[in-house]
Amino acid sequence: MISFACDYLEGCHEDILKALAATNRLQESGYGTDWFTASAIEKIREACACSEADIYFINGGTQTNQLVIDTMLQPYEGVVAAETGHVSVHEAGAIEFSGHKVLTVSSHCGKVKAAEVEAYVKRFYEDGSHEHMVFPGMLYISHPTEYGTLYTAKELRELRAVCDTYGMPLFVDGARLGYGLQARGTDVTMPLLAELSDVFYIGGTKVGALCGEAVVFTKQNTPRHFVTQIKQHGALSAKGRLMGIQFDTLFTDGLYEKISRHAIDMAEQVKAVFQEAGYALAIDSPTNQQFVILENNKMKELEKYVGFECWEPYDEQHTVVRFATSWATEQEHVDELRALLSGCKSME
Amino acid sequence: MISFACDYLEGCHEDILKALAATNRLQESGYGTDWFTASAIEKIREACACSEADIYFINGGTQTNQLVIDTMLQPYEGVVAAETGHVSVHEAGAIEFSGHKVLTVSSHCGKVKAAEVEAYVKRFYEDGSHEHMVFPGMLYISHPTEYGTLYTAKELRELRAVCDTYGMPLFVDGARLGYGLQARGTDVTMPLLAELSDVFYIGGTKVGALCGEAVVFTKQNTPRHFVTQIKQHGALSAKGRLMGIQFDTLFTDGLYEKISRHAIDMAEQVKAVFQEAGYALAIDSPTNQQFVILENNKMKELEKYVGFECWEPYDEQHTVVRFATSWATEQEHVDELRALLSGCKSME
Amino acid sequence: MISFACDYLEGCHEDILKALAATNRLQESGYGTDWFTASAIEKIREACACSEADIYFINGGTQTNQLVIDTMLQPYEGVVAAETGHVSVHEAGAIEFSGHKVLTVSSHCGKVKAAEVEAYVKRFYEDGSHEHMVFPGMLYISHPTEYGTLYTAKELRELRAVCDTYGMPLFVDGARLGYGLQARGTDVTMPLLAELSDVFYIGGTKVGALCGEAVVFTKQNTPRHFVTQIKQHGALSAKGRLMGIQFDTLFTDGLYEKISRHAIDMAEQVKAVFQEAGYALAIDSPTNQQFVILENNKMKELEKYVGFECWEPYDEQHTVVRFATSWATEQEHVDELRALLSGCKSME
Amino acid sequence: MISFACDYLEGCHEDILKALAATNRLQESGYGTDWFTASAIEKIREACACSEADIYFINGGTQTNQLVIDTMLQPYEGVVAAETGHVSVHEAGAIEFSGHKVLTVSSHCGKVKAAEVEAYVKRFYEDGSHEHMVFPGMLYISHPTEYGTLYTAKELRELRAVCDTYGMPLFVDGARLGYGLQARGTDVTMPLLAELSDVFYIGGTKVGALCGEAVVFTKQNTPRHFVTQIKQHGALSAKGRLMGIQFDTLFTDGLYEKISRHAIDMAEQVKAVFQEAGYALAIDSPTNQQFVILENNKMKELEKYVGFECWEPYDEQHTVVRFATSWATEQEHVDELRALLSGCKSME
Repeated sequence: MISFACDYLEGCHEDILKALAATNRLQESGYGTDWFTASAIEKIREACACSEADIYFINGGTQTNQLVIDTMLQPYEGVVAAETGHVSVHEAGAIEFSGHKVLTVSSHCGKVKAAEVEAYVKRFYEDGSHEHMVFPGMLYISHPTEYGTLYTAKELRELRAVCDTYGMPLFVDGARLGYGLQARGTDVTMPLLAELSDVFYIGGTKVGALCGEAVVFTKQNTPRHFVTQIKQHGALSAKGRLMGIQFDTLFTDGLYEKISRHAIDMAEQVKAVFQEAGYALAIDSPTNQQFVILENNKMKELEKYVGFECWEPYDEQHTVVRFATSWATEQEHVDELRALLSGCKSME
Repeated sequence: MISFACDYLEGCHEDILKALAATNRLQESGYGTDWFTASAIEKIREACACSEADIYFINGGTQTNQLVIDTMLQPYEGVVAAETGHVSVHEAGAIEFSGHKVLTVSSHCGKVKAAEVEAYVKRFYEDGSHEHMVFPGMLYISHPTEYGTLYTAKELRELRAVCDTYGMPLFVDGARLGYGLQARGTDVTMPLLAELSDVFYIGGTKVGALCGEAVVFTKQNTPRHFVTQIKQHGALSAKGRLMGIQFDTLFTDGLYEKISRHAIDMAEQVKAVFQEAGYALAIDSPTNQQFVILENNKMKELEKYVGFECWEPYDEQHTVVRFATSWATEQEHVDELRALLSGCKSME
Repeated sequence: MISFACDYLEGCHEDILKALAATNRLQESGYGTDWFTASAIEKIREACACSEADIYFINGGTQTNQLVIDTMLQPYEGVVAAETGHVSVHEAGAIEFSGHKVLTVSSHCGKVKAAEVEAYVKRFYEDGSHEHMVFPGMLYISHPTEYGTLYTAKELRELRAVCDTYGMPLFVDGARLGYGLQARGTDVTMPLLAELSDVFYIGGTKVGALCGEAVVFTKQNTPRHFVTQIKQHGALSAKGRLMGIQFDTLFTDGLYEKISRHAIDMAEQVKAVFQEAGYALAIDSPTNQQFVILENNKMKELEKYVGFECWEPYDEQHTVVRFATSWATEQEHVDELRALLSGCKSME
Repeated sequence: MISFACDYLEGCHEDILKALAATNRLQESGYGTDWFTASAIEKIREACACSEADIYFINGGTQTNQLVIDTMLQPYEGVVAAETGHVSVHEAGAIEFSGHKVLTVSSHCGKVKAAEVEAYVKRFYEDGSHEHMVFPGMLYISHPTEYGTLYTAKELRELRAVCDTYGMPLFVDGARLGYGLQARGTDVTMPLLAELSDVFYIGGTKVGALCGEAVVFTKQNTPRHFVTQIKQHGALSAKGRLMGIQFDTLFTDGLYEKISRHAIDMAEQVKAVFQEAGYALAIDSPTNQQFVILENNKMKELEKYVGFECWEPYDEQHTVVRFATSWATEQEHVDELRALLSGCKSME
């Protein structure tokens, strides 16, 4: 049975497997001091048009969020995020484990609004008791968001302006960044992200790699003794080459862009498949996650034939479900989905 | 230039690369719920002769130590360890980061003595002020130790007895476990370790894998909601398959044993090479790490031709250096070392 | 200038000063093992009609909340609280500092509704991803709330039922407990609180003492090695006698009740003063905190003559202000306030 | 029965009780913003000859140590201390609770040696793996030490020099500071301490107060948003006046010096009493703690008549015991002890 349940169902892009095999017996030093990591860093700097960027590779997303937030915040600061943000809801309290509060603002299909962030922070500083409260020390956003939506360049500039006013670094969680950058119609590029954010990460796990996220500090603002702090958080990989080789491959000959664009093409087809079959979308997502409203009985029937994720109840009779494409989605998968939904392929 | 600097210089055993390639496009669910992980768990249970063992795969060693210690201790407890233990010295404070003190006892070439552990704990409970002190809540040992040495079965039983007396779980750090189990003359087996410890881990990163350690809870004593706690520590891998496939491969047809034995064979040759060339050993290590005393000038000359690690000063004129073999050490490497040391190959 | 700005403006009830003087040179052992502490514990057990209660004295309220929540929660659990709860907003992240998330539900004038708490927790357990989220491990309420409101016995029983269903202890922050128990019309008594909660504390700092809160574990459920954990949190007082003597005095001959009732009498007069002068109340509070809506110019004029706290904006022209009475409020203070507001005493 | 068991057996100096009574009904604002606290700060600045000192009052010693160390260290740093230091042994892991390791050096009757501290730190920076280790971020010493001993001005200057070389702040735990400054023959004064340390605290709990330690930041180096961080650690007292009044009293008309000198006079008599009775001292302490070697049977007999603390075993037949004097020790207490030991008063 094919599945669109999430974007980490398969292994990795085959070019990575080849690179792992080709380099396997080369002896390289550990902890990120290997040649591949150095090469990957150079290529990512170029992709970001940010020659002074400091770049580190971390195994997973929650780990990256915990590490970046904890090391960039002062102890008395919390991180501002959408109430639906991954750090707010789905990291099992990893941020609080490191001592920091997540300060939530309203979510608009996963996005925060500059005016609302500003109002929150302004109210904080105007509150006579604010020394008894958690200081807003950083703004966390995800791009794409957990709901597949994207910020525009204008919106990012507005958030940047709020951050500048209040001295808060802007951190962009790019677990699915490739899919955001290749979405149709977006005006956000990797160099723009490097320009507007203080730190962001380029997701590998969901975009072609076996594991790994590339954290990019863009303003010569890497926390002091960062390697030590990575180790202290249990996040320093002995064989840094594993991530070095993967990101070196992903950033060679535009592979990261190419496979991301493929996922978007597949997602656009999935969206069309559902629309043609008469289903409504819960969110108009331009990225690899598509949110469809299914009648509950239909949902139960469909899940016998194809994998997807139940996202949240829509109303008594309907549920919002998520279909995710990825670098690994094949045309045949989408064709089969189309056949299932158009009735060409019977579902009993 | 060849290197014996450490046991994580190369990628992974080629069988793992093959398995990664062969399974790459299979769609599997995330976070350790995949088929490969399930299969690996069964094979490890068998290797441990412990059908009820609970097994989890964690990316790296420091992360595993932090996670196991923090989740098995009560908040007011610390972990007893040798003063040279990895958790005491070389984890950048990862244990303290999670709120626990490392309570040190003397190290005897990396090992702790049951009598000294008992004396420490006994003294604690006899101290009238012990409620103002950190409770000894667990005993941590490494096997092999950081100095390449091994416990005997008898010594492990003695440590177990102390742990039983004082209600402390026994945790064995097996980052290099394979090399310990395959050492010549050892009477410690994996089933014995499973019997005598409460929790131990089987190192992958240093024994044939790209990454990953297999944590084995042997007494149906897995901390509650352990998956949530793994996530909270930032240690839950989205693509659990990566470690599942690797350990499934390592525990198929005795691969883990075979490659570990190879490393021991190579280490015995390295030891012989040095002894034949007239060098003294700092420690009589039966495992893959060999500690040699080099005259400082000799050391400086040698390091132009072969990689190794300066371990610690021996005296004013000499240094203890470490040569590590691994699953990946080739006969040619050792032959070249022999040639270098015997003078067959000139060093200028 | 007299002030109603808060309920910790003065020192302590004079009986406490007398007791401190009378016992000053008696030699007593430290850390809560003194005679006065033992005596206070017995008297509080009696007042709670809970002979098996375990009782500890902690210096301040935030410290008590941090300590109780951290020691009663499992590491992977958070505490459910009203979004306006003291632990959510005004403790500078003390709960997160100890590693736990505050999980917020709606506030209704400071109170939480059993149905909403139940819905929150039910939704959590029904969520397929809940292992990636923070477990709701305890319910925190304040009585009186930060808005001066009170739960009824029926409401407390409903919350207790939800807690029973989901295995969550119920923790009642009683920083102003005396004022809640003496409010007119309440059907909540200290024995009822001991019966319905798992742990609560009896505020001393705001109710007649110089410092100190009495934490009452009602179900033989004191966290293990609690004295050690108090010390670990930096909250163990060397001279436990200071709090022992104070609570022994407060629970002798009904002093705690008597001085609390006095504060309520004063608060009822303050309420009447404002109502007679034609001001609207923002909240109908039966306790020692009164919330009045003042026109902004009036507020600015008034604050030249009497102390109070600006609580929050009401609308563009009005502000909610708080007038707090306490055990120390004197009839002359209220008379002066009446004179000011009735115009008998001119304000220019 | 009289007791010399510790220096916190009584309440507080009677002048403090008088000041508490005299100011009791004055309305003062909370959280250390009261008039008494401001006055105490000025007087302490003067006593330190350090007009720019920042001063905060914290309830207890362990809390102060945890707070100062955690807020002054970077997250990746630990605190260097004697292995017998209070923070190493008797704070129930409060330092580790806040995430930091205690890095121990040898203790010489409670003192550390500058050369040994330097060697430790030097070795750390020379270690090629030091990025995987905890950075030495601060030096903690106690003066007097836990063994009653004192540093000389010269020794403090040497420690200061090491701290300067390695950029480590010097923190002096002065829980018994008064007794150190009044010891006969010492050349350390409060202004000198203010000059040589980055932060120190003046103990109140053990020197005349009911509670409270005065933390003095001497170099305009108070951690940012320190009040918020005090609150976050649960250490901010609502009624700051309690400590303000006490320290204001202690630093009026030389009271702190006077009562400290009295304790030293009593200690010198206690020392003489034991020496005259033929007992050996375990440590030659010039401060209020006297350590005597008692034959075990004698110890058991003596403890029926007078309180003292068993410190540690001396050998099979003897024990080191501690007799502590304080501001509250009366001449009659010492006279009774003399009578007991000289045999003038029979012990059966």
